[in-house]
Amino acid sequence: MPAEADRTLPFVEEGASTTRCRIVATAERSFREIGYQKTTVADIAKTLKMSPANVYRFFDSKKAINEAVVGGLTREVEALISGIAQAPGLSAAERLSQIITALHSDCLERCRAFPRMHEMIEAAMSESWEVCRTHVERIRAVIARVVAEGVRAGEFSVPDPDLAAACVHAAIVRYCHPVLVSQTPEAPVPPIEAMIAFLLGGLRPAG
Amino acid sequence: MPAEADRTLPFVEEGASTTRCRIVATAERSFREIGYQKTTVADIAKTLKMSPANVYRFFDSKKAINEAVVGGLTREVEALISGIAQAPGLSAAERLSQIITALHSDCLERCRAFPRMHEMIEAAMSESWEVCRTHVERIRAVIARVVAEGVRAGEFSVPDPDLAAACVHAAIVRYCHPVLVSQTPEAPVPPIEAMIAFLLGGLRPAG
Repeated sequence: MPAEADRTLPFVEEGASTTRCRIVATAERSFREIGYQKTTVADIAKTLKMSPANVYRFFDSKKAINEAVVGGLTREVEALISGIAQAPGLSAAERLSQIITALHSDCLERCRAFPRMHEMIEAAMSESWEVCRTHVERIRAVIARVVAEGVRAGEFSVPDPDLAAACVHAAIVRYCHPVLVSQTPEAPVPPIEAMIAFLLGGLRPAG
Repeated sequence: MPAEADRTLPFVEEGASTTRCRIVATAERSFREIGYQKTTVADIAKTLKMSPANVYRFFDSKKAINEAVVGGLTREVEALISGIAQAPGLSAAERLSQIITALHSDCLERCRAFPRMHEMIEAAMSESWEVCRTHVERIRAVIARVVAEGVRAGEFSVPDPDLAAACVHAAIVRYCHPVLVSQTPEAPVPPIEAMIAFLLGGLRPAG
């Protein structure tokens, strides 16, 4: 009976979704505490008191679990900066400055709280490029929206706002990429405020 | 007899220096062919038909050998861009553009020819930070010289040429860092020419 099937489906899906969430949360804790390389699917299953076969019903590999963990982190970062992009009462320069500062602080904090995060990110970079690519494109899209608003308001003047936004995004990788931020704490790099001022200088109209 | 000692010393030193060079060249080939992680000091000694103890007379660890290998590569890159910084008949913008293009092309080529290079660089980043720091500072010094020349010539206008140079250098890390360049071949990043134009825009005088 279709009516019966329709009624029970949401409950089945909620159960599966809860199990998925528990697997992802447990994997994230294990990647944080013992590192991505040393964590096995068997460890995750054991912590959850389930069989590895049950974990594999939801994720076909450790790589797939990592994609879910990294996907969760990247969505948090995307939400953080989307909020700033939409906050009322700010100029485009203020928005851009706050977005870059937030990306940098968020990365610094995560690297401090989670010193082995770069292992997980390196695994995603080499095995799950699509997750990284999607994240880069979403962040770039948010920056592009702010740059385009600044151009419309006469605050910025660039021939191609999308390209300028992509340049700004590429230029801050040293401050926002977990692999660089976590591995080079004492690197001789200009303060983020100096970098923001330099980049805003490249966006502002001549004269 | 001091005269005797003085006469033989250069020959002894030349011998030691040749052995050091052979160890470094063999290590570099092994890092290239089988990777930094899988290479052992015993492998290097075996290829050179010497005992591991003899290798340890020259380098006290694999880390020390890696510092010599990475030091050699970084000096090549520094020489490449110092040449451009001193080439006659170029404006500061042309020099800077050629330096950034050279850093990017050199990195791309090395990553193509040496796909495991990032292992060696990651090891240097985590174990031999001084080698990396020195390299970053030398590249930044060359860029700073070109920016300062541009300011003197009225081509650029920035309040602090050293800081602007450090910003330019930090902004191109996405294009010149082996760990990022080798691991993300399909990354959505603007063409280097667009990035150079954007950065030059940040250096040029307003109006």
